[in-house]
Amino acid sequence: MGLSIREAVPGDEATILGFIKHLAAYEKLSHEVVASEDHLRASLFCEHPKVFALIAEVDGVPCGFALYFFNYSTFLGRHGVYLEDLYVAPEHRGAGAGKALLARLAQIARDNDCGRLEWWVLDWNEPAIDFYKSLNAQAMDEWTVFRLTGAPLEALANQDKASQ
Amino acid sequence: MGLSIREAVPGDEATILGFIKHLAAYEKLSHEVVASEDHLRASLFCEHPKVFALIAEVDGVPCGFALYFFNYSTFLGRHGVYLEDLYVAPEHRGAGAGKALLARLAQIARDNDCGRLEWWVLDWNEPAIDFYKSLNAQAMDEWTVFRLTGAPLEALANQDKASQ
Repeated sequence: MGLSIREAVPGDEATILGFIKHLAAYEKLSHEVVASEDHLRASLFCEHPKVFALIAEVDGVPCGFALYFFNYSTFLGRHGVYLEDLYVAPEHRGAGAGKALLARLAQIARDNDCGRLEWWVLDWNEPAIDFYKSLNAQAMDEWTVFRLTGAPLEALANQDKASQ
Repeated sequence: MGLSIREAVPGDEATILGFIKHLAAYEKLSHEVVASEDHLRASLFCEHPKVFALIAEVDGVPCGFALYFFNYSTFLGRHGVYLEDLYVAPEHRGAGAGKALLARLAQIARDNDCGRLEWWVLDWNEPAIDFYKSLNAQAMDEWTVFRLTGAPLEALANQDKASQ
């Protein structure tokens, strides 16, 4: 059978969570993982999901995954595909699974009239960056991501007049 | 009436597009704007929208907007709110409209069990960065955004086996 890409289906939760944990370990961010199989089931396999996953398989055995959602560009007036996570198990790297997952995402972008495929990468992850540059992806170096979470997010929500 | 925040409704397309163009001019990115009122109507006011907008008004007159969608954290197993655009007209800055828009987004995050509110900012936009830091938002300096668009995106899509 070789390498193939399919949509995730109910029953893949444990496989996906395992990949998420391996990816977090690689990114030295294991302490941030609180997701459970129940969380993934509720997000991916609900009636109107807003997030989606692809599974890469070699001879029918999962070897990696991609998780994505649709973002939006106000400048284009069109949605884009945003790749949240891409992971291929170490023993299967170099066989094209990562590129096959990205190619399927590019195809999904085309099918949905999306103008862009975007994702973040950690600055020290040189193998990934080299791979992305080989696809002629642009590093948007002039932009910085800001995040509000935990107590500061709660404090800001409490300032919303609609909540008072 | 003073300052108020409301959801965008059909008929707001021209107002929103005007704000998008002003924001693009401020970001020195006007050449990237190809969005039309029709694009915005189709995206914001369809049966199952994946992108949403808020309008800030002073005495009932629009003075700014925020456009957002739901992103996803695999580590949290939860959606987040992603702020794509935030704009307040220069003559209305300093009156709290930007903060009121962000506070409403924080409230929307809370209402939807989202763990994060995130956005990007241009590195040279110091007034915006100072404002975000005053809210205790974290700059995710170790991450870089990558983008695939145009011919490289098309080339990658053509490598998807499902499209052949």
